[in-house]
Amino acid sequence: MHSKSYLTVRYAETDRMGIVHHSQYPVWYEIGRTDYIKLFGYQYSKMEEAGVMMPLINLTCHFDYPARYEDKVIVRTWAIELKHAHMSFSYKVSKINDDGTETELGYGTTEHGFVDSKTFKPCSIKKRMPELFNSLKEVL
Amino acid sequence: MHSKSYLTVRYAETDRMGIVHHSQYPVWYEIGRTDYIKLFGYQYSKMEEAGVMMPLINLTCHFDYPARYEDKVIVRTWAIELKHAHMSFSYKVSKINDDGTETELGYGTTEHGFVDSKTFKPCSIKKRMPELFNSLKEVL
Amino acid sequence: MHSKSYLTVRYAETDRMGIVHHSQYPVWYEIGRTDYIKLFGYQYSKMEEAGVMMPLINLTCHFDYPARYEDKVIVRTWAIELKHAHMSFSYKVSKINDDGTETELGYGTTEHGFVDSKTFKPCSIKKRMPELFNSLKEVL
Amino acid sequence: MHSKSYLTVRYAETDRMGIVHHSQYPVWYEIGRTDYIKLFGYQYSKMEEAGVMMPLINLTCHFDYPARYEDKVIVRTWAIELKHAHMSFSYKVSKINDDGTETELGYGTTEHGFVDSKTFKPCSIKKRMPELFNSLKEVL
Repeated sequence: MHSKSYLTVRYAETDRMGIVHHSQYPVWYEIGRTDYIKLFGYQYSKMEEAGVMMPLINLTCHFDYPARYEDKVIVRTWAIELKHAHMSFSYKVSKINDDGTETELGYGTTEHGFVDSKTFKPCSIKKRMPELFNSLKEVL
Repeated sequence: MHSKSYLTVRYAETDRMGIVHHSQYPVWYEIGRTDYIKLFGYQYSKMEEAGVMMPLINLTCHFDYPARYEDKVIVRTWAIELKHAHMSFSYKVSKINDDGTETELGYGTTEHGFVDSKTFKPCSIKKRMPELFNSLKEVL
Repeated sequence: MHSKSYLTVRYAETDRMGIVHHSQYPVWYEIGRTDYIKLFGYQYSKMEEAGVMMPLINLTCHFDYPARYEDKVIVRTWAIELKHAHMSFSYKVSKINDDGTETELGYGTTEHGFVDSKTFKPCSIKKRMPELFNSLKEVL
Repeated sequence: MHSKSYLTVRYAETDRMGIVHHSQYPVWYEIGRTDYIKLFGYQYSKMEEAGVMMPLINLTCHFDYPARYEDKVIVRTWAIELKHAHMSFSYKVSKINDDGTETELGYGTTEHGFVDSKTFKPCSIKKRMPELFNSLKEVL
Protein backbone atom coordinates (compact mmCIF):
# COMPACT_ATOMS: atom_id res chain seq x y z
CA MET A 1 0.00 0.00 0.00
CA HIS A 2 1.28 3.43 -0.87
CA SER A 3 0.02 6.97 -1.26
CA LYS A 4 0.35 9.10 -4.37
CA SER A 5 0.93 12.86 -4.11
CA TYR A 6 0.67 15.02 -7.22
CA LEU A 7 2.71 18.22 -7.52
CA THR A 8 3.56 20.84 -10.11
CA VAL A 9 7.12 22.16 -9.79
CA ARG A 10 7.14 25.71 -8.40
CA TYR A 11 9.41 28.38 -9.82
CA ALA A 12 10.90 29.02 -6.37
CA GLU A 13 11.90 25.36 -6.15
CA THR A 14 14.43 25.76 -8.98
CA ASP A 15 18.03 26.90 -8.65
CA ARG A 16 20.51 28.52 -11.01
CA MET A 17 21.19 25.16 -12.69
CA GLY A 18 17.62 25.49 -13.97
CA ILE A 19 16.56 22.37 -12.05
CA VAL A 20 14.77 21.69 -8.78
CA HIS A 21 17.20 22.21 -5.90
CA HIS A 22 17.96 18.92 -4.17
CA SER A 23 16.88 20.33 -0.77
CA GLN A 24 13.35 20.40 -2.14
CA TYR A 25 13.05 16.61 -2.26
CA PRO A 26 12.81 16.17 1.53
CA VAL A 27 9.98 18.74 1.39
CA TRP A 28 8.23 16.64 -1.24
CA TYR A 29 8.78 13.49 0.84
CA GLU A 30 7.05 15.30 3.69
CA ILE A 31 4.03 15.94 1.47
CA GLY A 32 4.14 12.21 0.73
CA ARG A 33 4.07 11.35 4.46
CA THR A 34 1.19 13.78 5.06
CA ASP A 35 -0.83 12.00 2.36
CA TYR A 36 0.27 8.54 3.49
CA ILE A 37 -0.98 9.07 7.04
CA LYS A 38 -4.31 10.30 5.63
CA LEU A 39 -4.80 6.85 4.07
CA PHE A 40 -5.34 5.64 7.64
CA GLY A 41 -7.85 8.32 8.50
CA TYR A 42 -5.32 10.36 10.52
CA GLN A 43 -3.87 13.82 10.02
CA TYR A 44 -0.29 14.47 10.97
CA SER A 45 -1.29 17.94 12.24
CA LYS A 46 -3.75 16.27 14.63
CA MET A 47 -1.07 13.80 15.79
CA GLU A 48 1.10 16.75 16.77
CA GLU A 49 -1.80 18.43 18.55
CA ALA A 50 -2.29 15.12 20.39
CA GLY A 51 1.27 15.43 21.63
CA VAL A 52 3.36 13.22 19.30
CA MET A 53 5.95 14.58 16.87
CA MET A 54 8.15 12.74 14.37
CA PRO A 55 11.49 14.53 13.90
CA LEU A 56 13.95 12.99 11.46
CA ILE A 57 16.80 10.73 12.49
CA ASN A 58 18.01 9.83 9.00
CA LEU A 59 17.41 11.01 5.46
CA THR A 60 18.67 9.57 2.18
CA CYS A 61 17.97 10.88 -1.32
CA HIS A 62 19.08 9.42 -4.62
CA PHE A 63 18.82 11.60 -7.72
CA ASP A 64 18.61 10.11 -11.21
CA TYR A 65 17.15 12.80 -13.36
CA PRO A 66 16.37 16.48 -12.71
CA ALA A 67 12.92 18.05 -12.41
CA ARG A 68 12.20 21.45 -13.95
CA TYR A 69 9.71 24.30 -13.48
CA GLU A 70 6.11 23.33 -14.31
CA ASP A 71 6.94 19.60 -14.49
CA LYS A 72 4.15 17.38 -13.21
CA VAL A 73 5.55 15.20 -10.44
CA ILE A 74 4.22 12.25 -8.49
CA VAL A 75 5.57 11.20 -5.09
CA ARG A 76 4.82 7.64 -4.02
CA THR A 77 5.20 6.91 -0.30
CA TRP A 78 5.48 3.63 1.59
CA ALA A 79 5.92 2.83 5.27
CA ILE A 80 8.81 0.39 5.47
CA GLU A 81 9.36 -0.13 9.18
CA LEU A 82 7.45 0.55 12.37
CA LYS A 83 8.83 0.10 15.88
CA HIS A 84 7.47 1.46 19.17
CA ALA A 85 9.70 4.51 19.10
CA HIS A 86 10.60 5.00 15.45
CA MET A 87 9.33 4.55 11.92
CA SER A 88 10.72 4.58 8.39
CA PHE A 89 9.29 5.54 5.02
CA SER A 90 10.48 5.18 1.44
CA TYR A 91 9.61 7.44 -1.49
CA LYS A 92 9.79 7.29 -5.25
CA VAL A 93 9.59 10.56 -7.18
CA SER A 94 8.66 10.50 -10.87
CA LYS A 95 7.91 13.01 -13.56
CA ILE A 96 4.70 12.54 -15.51
CA ASN A 97 5.48 13.12 -19.18
CA ASP A 98 3.08 14.71 -21.64
CA ASP A 99 2.16 11.29 -23.04
CA GLY A 100 1.28 9.99 -19.56
CA THR A 101 4.37 7.84 -19.16
CA GLU A 102 6.62 8.37 -16.14
CA THR A 103 10.32 9.09 -15.81
CA GLU A 104 11.80 8.18 -12.44
CA LEU A 105 13.60 11.18 -10.94
CA GLY A 106 14.89 9.47 -7.82
CA TYR A 107 14.01 7.81 -4.56
CA GLY A 108 14.75 8.16 -0.89
CA THR A 109 14.07 7.17 2.69
CA THR A 110 13.41 8.87 5.99
CA GLU A 111 13.66 7.48 9.51
CA HIS A 112 11.78 9.23 12.30
CA GLY A 113 11.69 9.03 16.07
CA PHE A 114 8.43 9.46 17.93
CA VAL A 115 8.87 12.14 20.59
CA ASP A 116 6.64 13.92 23.04
CA SER A 117 5.70 17.39 21.77
CA LYS A 118 6.58 19.12 25.01
CA THR A 119 9.64 17.29 26.26
CA PHE A 120 11.13 16.19 22.92
CA LYS A 121 11.81 12.84 24.68
CA PRO A 122 11.20 9.54 22.85
CA CYS A 123 7.77 8.09 23.34
CA SER A 124 5.96 4.92 22.25
CA ILE A 125 3.51 5.37 19.41
CA LYS A 126 2.07 1.99 20.35
CA LYS A 127 1.07 3.38 23.74
CA ARG A 128 0.15 6.89 22.65
CA MET A 129 -1.81 6.06 19.50
CA PRO A 130 -2.52 2.31 19.60
CA GLU A 131 -5.12 2.38 16.82
CA LEU A 132 -2.80 4.11 14.37
CA PHE A 133 0.02 1.76 15.39
CA ASN A 134 -2.14 -1.29 14.68
CA SER A 135 -3.40 0.07 11.37
CA LEU A 136 0.13 0.75 10.22
CA LYS A 137 1.37 -2.64 11.45
CA GLU A 138 -1.19 -4.39 9.29
CA VAL A 139 0.21 -3.02 6.05
CA LEU A 140 3.86 -3.72 6.88
CA MET B 1 21.01 54.13 14.22
CA HIS B 2 20.95 51.00 12.12
CA SER B 3 22.37 47.49 12.15
CA LYS B 4 24.50 45.92 9.44
CA SER B 5 24.16 42.23 8.59
CA TYR B 6 26.68 40.60 6.27
CA LEU B 7 25.70 37.65 4.08
CA THR B 8 27.12 35.58 1.27
CA VAL B 9 24.50 34.48 -1.26
CA ARG B 10 23.75 30.75 -0.92
CA TYR B 11 23.34 28.53 -3.96
CA ALA B 12 19.91 27.43 -2.75
CA GLU B 13 18.79 31.07 -2.69
CA THR B 14 19.04 31.32 -6.49
CA ASP B 15 16.37 30.39 -8.99
CA ARG B 16 16.39 29.36 -12.65
CA MET B 17 16.87 32.98 -13.73
CA GLY B 18 20.30 32.63 -12.11
CA ILE B 19 19.48 35.31 -9.53
CA VAL B 20 18.38 35.30 -5.91
CA HIS B 21 14.67 34.49 -5.73
CA HIS B 22 12.66 37.47 -4.53
CA SER B 23 11.11 35.45 -1.68
CA GLN B 24 14.57 35.37 -0.12
CA TYR B 25 14.61 39.09 0.64
CA PRO B 26 12.06 38.87 3.48
CA VAL B 27 14.32 36.18 4.96
CA TRP B 28 17.27 38.56 4.75
CA TYR B 29 15.18 41.34 6.31
CA GLU B 30 14.50 38.96 9.18
CA ILE B 31 18.24 38.48 9.69
CA GLY B 32 18.42 42.28 9.74
CA ARG B 33 15.78 42.50 12.49
CA THR B 34 17.55 39.81 14.52
CA ASP B 35 20.75 41.88 14.40
CA TYR B 36 18.94 45.17 14.99
CA ILE B 37 17.34 43.95 18.20
CA LYS B 38 20.75 42.74 19.38
CA LEU B 39 21.96 46.37 19.24
CA PHE B 40 19.73 46.93 22.29
CA GLY B 41 21.07 43.97 24.20
CA TYR B 42 18.03 41.80 23.45
CA GLN B 43 17.60 38.58 21.51
CA TYR B 44 14.45 38.03 19.52
CA SER B 45 14.50 34.33 20.50
CA LYS B 46 14.42 35.40 24.17
CA MET B 47 11.56 37.82 23.48
CA GLU B 48 9.55 34.90 22.11
CA GLU B 49 10.43 32.76 25.11
CA ALA B 50 9.25 35.66 27.28
CA GLY B 51 5.88 35.41 25.55
CA VAL B 52 5.91 38.12 22.87
CA MET B 53 5.91 37.39 19.13
CA MET B 54 6.00 39.75 16.16
CA PRO B 55 4.10 38.32 13.19
CA LEU B 56 4.00 40.41 10.02
CA ILE B 57 1.11 42.67 9.09
CA ASN B 58 2.66 44.22 5.98
CA LEU B 59 5.68 43.61 3.78
CA THR B 60 7.01 45.68 0.89
CA CYS B 61 10.08 44.92 -1.23
CA HIS B 62 11.52 46.98 -4.05
CA PHE B 63 14.06 45.33 -6.35
CA ASP B 64 16.57 47.37 -8.34
CA TYR B 65 19.30 44.98 -9.24
CA PRO B 66 19.66 41.20 -8.87
CA ALA B 67 21.98 39.37 -6.47
CA ARG B 68 23.82 36.24 -7.59
CA TYR B 69 25.44 33.17 -6.00
CA GLU B 70 28.48 34.01 -3.84
CA ASP B 71 27.77 37.76 -3.93
CA LYS B 72 28.65 39.54 -0.71
CA VAL B 73 25.57 41.32 0.57
CA ILE B 74 24.92 43.81 3.36
CA VAL B 75 21.48 44.36 4.90
CA ARG B 76 20.99 47.63 6.77
CA THR B 77 18.04 47.76 9.17
CA TRP B 78 16.29 50.68 10.81
CA ALA B 79 13.31 50.89 13.17
CA ILE B 80 10.96 53.46 11.66
CA GLU B 81 7.91 53.38 13.92
CA LEU B 82 7.03 52.05 17.35
CA LYS B 83 3.57 51.99 18.85
CA HIS B 84 2.30 49.99 21.82
CA ALA B 85 0.98 47.18 19.70
CA HIS B 86 2.96 47.38 16.47
CA MET B 87 6.33 48.31 15.03
CA SER B 88 7.85 48.96 11.61
CA PHE B 89 11.31 48.49 10.15
CA SER B 90 12.98 49.51 6.91
CA TYR B 91 15.82 47.74 5.14
CA LYS B 92 18.34 48.50 2.46
CA VAL B 93 20.09 45.62 0.72
CA SER B 94 23.35 46.23 -1.14
CA LYS B 95 25.96 44.15 -2.88
CA ILE B 96 29.56 44.71 -1.86
CA ASN B 97 31.64 44.82 -5.02
CA ASP B 98 35.19 43.49 -5.28
CA ASP B 99 36.57 47.02 -5.00
CA GLY B 100 34.66 47.65 -1.78
CA THR B 101 32.04 49.93 -3.35
CA GLU B 102 28.37 49.06 -2.95
CA THR B 103 25.58 48.55 -5.47
CA GLU B 104 22.09 48.99 -4.05
CA LEU B 105 19.97 45.92 -4.79
CA GLY B 106 16.73 47.16 -3.28
CA TYR B 107 14.93 48.20 -0.15
CA GLY B 108 11.84 47.29 1.79
CA THR B 109 9.72 47.62 4.90
CA THR B 110 7.95 45.35 7.36
CA GLU B 111 5.20 46.15 9.83
CA HIS B 112 4.66 43.82 12.78
CA GLY B 113 2.05 43.39 15.44
CA PHE B 114 3.05 42.41 18.97
CA VAL B 115 1.05 39.37 20.02
CA ASP B 116 1.01 37.05 22.99
CA SER B 117 2.82 33.76 22.20
CA LYS B 118 0.04 31.59 23.51
CA THR B 119 -3.14 33.37 22.51
CA PHE B 120 -1.90 35.14 19.34
CA LYS B 121 -3.86 38.17 20.63
CA PRO B 122 -2.37 41.69 20.35
CA CYS B 123 -0.40 42.80 23.37
CA SER B 124 1.41 45.97 24.44
CA ILE B 125 5.18 45.82 24.14
CA LYS B 126 5.27 48.89 26.37
CA LYS B 127 3.69 46.88 29.18
CA ARG B 128 5.36 43.56 28.49
CA MET B 129 8.90 44.77 27.84
CA PRO B 130 9.07 48.39 29.03
CA GLU B 131 12.87 48.59 28.96
CA LEU B 132 13.09 47.47 25.34
CA PHE B 133 10.22 49.81 24.45
CA ASN B 134 12.02 52.76 26.01
CA SER B 135 15.36 51.91 24.40
CA LEU B 136 13.72 51.67 20.98
CA LYS B 137 11.75 54.88 21.54
CA GLU B 138 14.96 56.79 22.14
CA VAL B 139 16.36 56.08 18.69
CA LEU B 140 13.17 56.88 16.81
CA MET C 1 -11.16 37.31 -14.84
CA HIS C 2 -8.95 35.57 -12.32
CA SER C 3 -7.30 32.21 -11.76
CA LYS C 4 -7.76 30.01 -8.71
CA SER C 5 -4.88 27.94 -7.36
CA TYR C 6 -5.53 25.34 -4.68
CA LEU C 7 -2.82 24.45 -2.16
CA THR C 8 -2.42 22.43 1.01
CA VAL C 9 0.00 24.01 3.50
CA ARG C 10 3.26 22.06 3.65
CA TYR C 11 4.98 21.33 6.94
CA ALA C 12 8.19 22.96 5.69
CA GLU C 13 6.27 26.18 5.03
CA THR C 14 5.66 26.70 8.76
CA ASP C 15 7.99 28.42 11.20
CA ARG C 16 8.48 28.26 14.95
CA MET C 17 5.42 30.45 15.53
CA GLY C 18 3.48 27.46 14.20
CA ILE C 19 2.21 29.46 11.23
CA VAL C 20 3.21 29.75 7.56
CA HIS C 21 6.30 31.91 7.28
CA HIS C 22 5.53 35.19 5.52
CA SER C 23 8.25 34.58 2.91
CA GLN C 24 6.08 31.75 1.61
CA TYR C 25 3.36 34.07 0.32
CA PRO C 26 5.42 35.39 -2.62
CA VAL C 27 5.99 31.73 -3.54
CA TRP C 28 2.23 31.16 -3.48
CA TYR C 29 1.67 34.31 -5.56
CA GLU C 30 4.08 32.82 -8.11
CA ILE C 31 1.94 29.69 -8.29
CA GLY C 32 -0.98 32.04 -8.87
CA ARG C 33 0.81 33.74 -11.80
CA THR C 34 1.74 30.38 -13.30
CA ASP C 35 -1.92 29.39 -13.27
CA TYR C 36 -3.11 32.81 -14.44
CA ILE C 37 -0.94 32.71 -17.55
CA LYS C 38 -2.25 29.23 -18.33
CA LEU C 39 -5.75 30.75 -18.63
CA PHE C 40 -4.48 32.33 -21.85
CA GLY C 41 -3.05 29.11 -23.23
CA TYR C 42 0.54 30.04 -22.37
CA GLN C 43 3.07 28.51 -20.02
CA TYR C 44 5.46 30.76 -18.17
CA SER C 45 8.23 28.14 -18.61
CA LYS C 46 7.72 28.38 -22.39
CA MET C 47 7.82 32.19 -22.25
CA GLU C 48 11.23 31.94 -20.61
CA GLU C 49 12.41 29.44 -23.18
CA ALA C 50 11.21 31.91 -25.83
CA GLY C 51 13.54 34.48 -24.30
CA VAL C 52 11.35 36.63 -22.04
CA MET C 53 11.67 36.69 -18.25
CA MET C 54 9.65 38.61 -15.65
CA PRO C 55 11.80 39.49 -12.61
CA LEU C 56 10.12 41.40 -9.80
CA ILE C 57 10.33 45.16 -9.40
CA ASN C 58 7.93 45.48 -6.46
CA LEU C 59 6.23 43.18 -4.01
CA THR C 60 3.61 43.97 -1.37
CA CYS C 61 1.99 41.53 1.03
CA HIS C 62 -0.69 42.22 3.62
CA PHE C 63 -1.34 39.60 6.28
CA ASP C 64 -4.65 39.38 8.11
CA TYR C 65 -4.77 35.92 9.52
CA PRO C 66 -2.21 33.10 9.73
CA ALA C 67 -2.25 29.84 7.79
CA ARG C 68 -1.26 26.58 9.45
CA TYR C 69 0.01 23.14 8.42
CA GLU C 70 -2.52 21.14 6.36
CA ASP C 71 -4.81 24.15 5.86
CA LYS C 72 -6.51 24.21 2.48
CA VAL C 73 -5.66 27.46 0.77
CA ILE C 74 -6.87 29.19 -2.38
CA VAL C 75 -4.87 31.86 -4.20
CA ARG C 76 -6.84 34.11 -6.55
CA THR C 77 -4.79 36.02 -9.12
CA TRP C 78 -5.67 39.01 -11.30
CA ALA C 79 -3.66 40.99 -13.82
CA ILE C 80 -4.08 44.63 -12.87
CA GLU C 81 -1.84 46.51 -15.28
CA LEU C 82 -0.04 45.78 -18.53
CA LYS C 83 2.44 48.08 -20.23
CA HIS C 84 4.95 47.28 -22.97
CA ALA C 85 7.77 46.70 -20.54
CA HIS C 86 6.09 45.83 -17.27
CA MET C 87 3.04 44.18 -15.75
CA SER C 88 1.33 43.97 -12.37
CA PHE C 89 -0.75 41.33 -10.64
CA SER C 90 -2.84 41.25 -7.49
CA TYR C 91 -3.56 38.23 -5.30
CA LYS C 92 -5.99 37.26 -2.60
CA VAL C 93 -5.14 34.32 -0.34
CA SER C 94 -7.90 32.59 1.60
CA LYS C 95 -8.23 29.54 3.77
CA ILE C 96 -11.00 27.11 2.93
CA ASN C 97 -12.70 26.10 6.17
CA ASP C 98 -14.11 22.65 6.85
CA ASP C 99 -17.64 23.91 6.16
CA GLY C 100 -16.60 25.29 2.76
CA THR C 101 -16.61 28.94 3.80
CA GLU C 102 -13.49 31.01 3.31
CA THR C 103 -11.39 33.10 5.70
CA GLU C 104 -9.27 35.75 4.00
CA LEU C 105 -5.63 35.40 5.05
CA GLY C 106 -4.29 38.39 3.16
CA TYR C 107 -3.63 39.95 -0.20
CA GLY C 108 -0.75 41.35 -2.19
CA THR C 109 0.62 42.69 -5.43
CA THR C 110 3.65 42.12 -7.64
CA GLU C 111 5.06 44.33 -10.36
CA HIS C 112 7.33 42.76 -12.98
CA GLY C 113 9.58 44.01 -15.73
CA PHE C 114 9.85 42.13 -18.99
CA VAL C 115 13.52 41.44 -19.72
CA ASP C 116 15.44 39.51 -22.32
CA SER C 117 16.60 36.13 -20.95
CA LYS C 118 20.17 36.55 -22.12
CA THR C 119 20.91 40.22 -21.60
CA PHE C 120 18.57 40.93 -18.64
CA LYS C 121 17.73 44.20 -20.48
CA PRO C 122 14.12 45.47 -20.61
CA CYS C 123 12.17 44.29 -23.63
CA SER C 124 8.69 44.91 -25.00
CA ILE C 125 6.23 42.07 -24.44
CA LYS C 126 4.05 43.69 -27.09
CA LYS C 127 6.77 43.13 -29.68
CA ARG C 128 8.06 39.81 -28.43
CA MET C 129 4.76 38.08 -27.73
CA PRO C 130 2.04 40.17 -29.42
CA GLU C 131 -0.67 37.52 -29.13
CA LEU C 132 -0.21 37.14 -25.39
CA PHE C 133 -0.08 40.93 -25.04
CA ASN C 134 -3.36 41.32 -26.86
CA SER C 135 -5.08 38.53 -24.94
CA LEU C 136 -4.03 40.08 -21.65
CA LYS C 137 -5.05 43.57 -22.78
CA GLU C 138 -8.56 42.37 -23.46
CA VAL C 139 -9.18 41.36 -19.86
CA LEU C 140 -7.77 44.54 -18.32
CA MET D 1 42.00 19.12 5.65
CA HIS D 2 38.54 20.58 6.11
CA SER D 3 36.75 23.90 5.90
CA LYS D 4 34.76 25.53 8.68
CA SER D 5 31.62 27.54 7.91
CA TYR D 6 29.99 29.61 10.65
CA LEU D 7 26.25 30.26 10.62
CA THR D 8 23.58 31.72 12.86
CA VAL D 9 20.24 29.93 12.58
CA ARG D 10 17.68 32.05 10.71
CA TYR D 11 14.09 32.34 11.87
CA ALA D 12 12.85 31.18 8.47
CA GLU D 13 14.89 27.98 8.85
CA THR D 14 12.71 26.81 11.73
CA ASP D 15 9.47 24.86 11.46
CA ARG D 16 6.45 24.44 13.71
CA MET D 17 8.34 21.96 15.90
CA GLY D 18 10.44 24.99 16.88
CA ILE D 19 13.58 23.44 15.40
CA VAL D 20 15.50 23.84 12.14
CA HIS D 21 13.67 21.98 9.39
CA HIS D 22 15.68 18.99 8.17
CA SER D 23 15.59 20.22 4.56
CA GLN D 24 17.83 23.07 5.67
CA TYR D 25 20.82 20.81 6.33
CA PRO D 26 21.54 20.14 2.62
CA VAL D 27 21.55 23.94 2.22
CA TRP D 28 24.10 24.23 5.01
CA TYR D 29 26.19 21.44 3.44
CA GLU D 30 26.19 23.50 0.24
CA ILE D 31 27.61 26.47 2.15
CA GLY D 32 30.24 24.04 3.43
CA ARG D 33 31.18 22.99 -0.13
CA THR D 34 31.35 26.61 -1.25
CA ASP D 35 33.84 27.32 1.54
CA TYR D 36 35.74 24.06 0.99
CA ILE D 37 36.41 24.83 -2.67
CA LYS D 38 37.64 28.29 -1.67
CA LEU D 39 40.42 26.60 0.34
CA PHE D 40 41.90 25.68 -3.05
CA GLY D 41 41.66 29.18 -4.45
CA TYR D 42 38.59 28.38 -6.57
CA GLN D 43 35.04 29.67 -6.48
CA TYR D 44 32.20 27.33 -7.29
CA SER D 45 30.40 30.16 -9.10
CA LYS D 46 33.46 30.52 -11.37
CA MET D 47 33.55 26.75 -12.00
CA GLU D 48 29.98 26.95 -13.24
CA GLU D 49 30.79 29.93 -15.44
CA ALA D 50 33.70 27.85 -16.81
CA GLY D 51 31.13 25.24 -17.84
CA VAL D 52 31.23 22.60 -15.10
CA MET D 53 28.32 21.94 -12.73
CA MET D 54 28.03 19.47 -9.85
CA PRO D 55 24.43 18.25 -9.44
CA LEU D 56 23.77 15.77 -6.63
CA ILE D 57 23.59 12.03 -7.14
CA ASN D 58 23.20 11.06 -3.48
CA LEU D 59 22.52 12.77 -0.20
CA THR D 60 22.53 11.37 3.33
CA CYS D 61 21.81 13.26 6.54
CA HIS D 62 21.92 11.97 10.09
CA PHE D 63 20.28 14.04 12.81
CA ASP D 64 21.31 13.71 16.46
CA TYR D 65 20.15 16.88 18.09
CA PRO D 66 18.00 19.78 16.88
CA ALA D 67 19.19 23.32 16.13
CA ARG D 68 17.08 26.31 17.12
CA TYR D 69 16.67 29.96 16.09
CA GLU D 70 19.76 32.09 16.81
CA ASP D 71 21.95 29.05 17.58
CA LYS D 72 25.53 29.45 16.46
CA VAL D 73 26.38 26.59 14.13
CA ILE D 74 29.58 25.34 12.54
CA VAL D 75 29.65 23.16 9.43
CA ARG D 76 32.86 21.21 8.83
CA THR D 77 33.38 19.90 5.29
CA TRP D 78 35.74 17.27 3.92
CA ALA D 79 36.26 15.88 0.42
CA ILE D 80 36.14 12.12 0.76
CA GLU D 81 36.40 10.83 -2.80
CA LEU D 82 37.38 12.22 -6.16
CA LYS D 83 37.00 10.42 -9.48
CA HIS D 84 37.12 11.85 -13.00
CA ALA D 85 33.36 12.21 -13.23
CA HIS D 86 32.16 12.40 -9.65
CA MET D 87 33.13 13.54 -6.18
CA SER D 88 31.94 13.06 -2.60
CA PHE D 89 31.98 15.24 0.50
CA SER D 90 31.22 14.63 4.16
CA TYR D 91 29.95 17.19 6.67
CA LYS D 92 29.69 17.52 10.40
CA VAL D 93 27.29 20.08 11.84
CA SER D 94 27.73 21.26 15.43
CA LYS D 95 26.21 23.85 17.67
CA ILE D 96 28.57 26.20 19.46
CA ASN D 97 27.40 26.53 23.05
CA ASP D 98 27.69 29.71 25.10
CA ASP D 99 30.74 28.33 26.91
CA GLY D 100 32.51 27.63 23.60
CA THR D 101 32.04 23.86 23.73
CA GLU D 102 30.34 22.12 20.82
CA THR D 103 27.32 19.83 20.63
CA GLU D 104 27.22 17.64 17.52
CA LEU D 105 23.90 18.08 15.72
CA GLY D 106 24.50 15.55 12.97
CA TYR D 107 26.52 14.63 9.94
CA GLY D 108 26.00 13.78 6.30
CA THR D 109 27.43 13.11 2.87
CA THR D 110 26.82 14.25 -0.68
CA GLU D 111 27.91 12.63 -3.95
CA HIS D 112 28.06 14.78 -7.07
CA GLY D 113 28.51 14.15 -10.76
CA PHE D 114 30.50 16.57 -12.89
CA VAL D 115 28.40 17.63 -15.86
CA ASP D 116 28.74 20.10 -18.68
CA SER D 117 26.73 23.29 -17.98
CA LYS D 118 25.08 23.31 -21.37
CA THR D 119 24.45 19.67 -22.16
CA PHE D 120 24.03 18.31 -18.59
CA LYS D 121 26.15 15.34 -19.82
CA PRO D 122 28.88 13.88 -17.57
CA CYS D 123 32.32 15.39 -18.06
CA SER D 124 35.79 14.78 -16.65
CA ILE D 125 36.90 17.31 -14.05
CA LYS D 126 40.43 16.00 -14.59
CA LYS D 127 40.31 17.17 -18.20
CA ARG D 128 38.27 20.32 -17.69
CA MET D 129 39.98 21.66 -14.58
CA PRO D 130 43.24 19.70 -14.17
CA GLU D 131 44.74 22.07 -11.60
CA LEU D 132 41.75 21.85 -9.29
CA PHE D 133 41.66 18.07 -9.78
CA ASN D 134 45.31 17.75 -8.79
CA SER D 135 44.95 20.07 -5.79
CA LEU D 136 41.98 18.07 -4.53
CA LYS D 137 43.74 14.74 -5.18
CA GLU D 138 46.60 15.78 -2.94
CA VAL D 139 44.43 16.12 0.14
CA LEU D 140 42.56 12.84 -0.35
